[in-house]
Order: sequence, then structure tokens, then C-alpha cells
Amino acid sequence: MFVAMNHFNVAEGKAEEFENTWRNRETYLDGVPGFVEFALLKADAEGEYISHSVWQDRAAFEDWTNSEAFVKGHRQGSLTGVLEGAPHVSTYQAIIVQGPDGRTVDAE
Amino acid sequence: MFVAMNHFNVAEGKAEEFENTWRNRETYLDGVPGFVEFALLKADAEGEYISHSVWQDRAAFEDWTNSEAFVKGHRQGSLTGVLEGAPHVSTYQAIIVQGPDGRTVDAE
Repeated sequence: MFVAMNHFNVAEGKAEEFENTWRNRETYLDGVPGFVEFALLKADAEGEYISHSVWQDRAAFEDWTNSEAFVKGHRQGSLTGVLEGAPHVSTYQAIIVQGPDGRTVDAE
Repeated sequence: MFVAMNHFNVAEGKAEEFENTWRNRETYLDGVPGFVEFALLKADAEGEYISHSVWQDRAAFEDWTNSEAFVKGHRQGSLTGVLEGAPHVSTYQAIIVQGPDGRTVDAE
């Protein structure tokens, strides 16, 4: 399991506009190989959001970033004037995963 | 969907010890109401880890933090001498969730 998080700082008074951009955006993630889940997360801290995506592994994420689906998904819904500063991406490999059905250590 | 992330900065040379503490830790999350998934995530950035948990909603997370299971889970495996600085928790409400089965907007 591999997780990519893109962190956004939204300017004061722009939260609704930011959220609506995402609500109206086509993600083009349907059927992307190795895609598990996407979520737009709103932090308790004012103006902080994360575009959070879960992948089977790092290769699936990297293949998506090099795909036409990625280009199409990022071409729409400009966030100019809505953000403070540039978004920044951080990526993570799961060492342990535990769900209702059990625990996996060193999941790839 | 509600997400809680506890961020850890691990001291140089202590990553293996940190990971092993988690591998040997009982999470006591089995059967906790509203628990969806736990993962220990290792960032690409050296020494950065996230204890990442997903919950049905904020109430489920808050009920867990007030439970005996939480106390038992946090009593074991001291991280003294392994971390640089204190861990910090951030929490998030999902605004949009999309999986292979479709998309939910304003998921609670």
C-alpha cells in the first residue's frame, strides 16, 4: 500500500470556492490500474486540505503520474488565486496495514 | 470518513528500532466501533512516519480516544530516545471520497 498526499493551503475566504472546484472536477481515476481510493480531506486547522490517494504500490502511482488520465485530471479547475503558496506532495510506503480483517506487516 | 494522522520524526539511526516497536505492538483496534483501517506509513523523506487511522466519522475516533482500548494501546512500547521532538496529531474530515465503486461527495 502506497499513499500520496498533496497539501494545499487555501487563502482566507476561499474555502468554498476551493471545495467546489474539487466537487466539479472529474478525477479520471476510474479503472486506473492499482488505484485504491481518493479522498479530499479538510483539516481541523483552518484552510488546510489534502488531496489523498491510496495505491496498491509505488509503481501504480508513478505510472498514473505519467499517464494521459493524470494530465486530463490536472488540466481542469484552476486554483489560481485560491491558494496561498504552492501545493506540496509527500509520498509514503505502508509498513503495517490493519483493517477489520486482520493485520499485514511490511505490505508492499 | 474521518482520518487521524500522528506525525513522528525519528532520530537518525533509530528507524529500525522505531519500526520494530510498531511491529511488536498490539493495536487493540479489533472490534472498535467505527474503526476502518490503521496504517503505519514511512515517508520518502528520511525519518518521517505517520500513524494513520481511518474512521467512519469523528465521533468514532473521539470515542476510541476515550476508551480503555486506547489507553492499553498507548501504554506499550515506549518511544523515548527514538524520536526527535514530540509527535503531533492532525485530523481531517473527508469532503469527497472516491473508490473503485464510485464517488461520494460530502461523506460524513
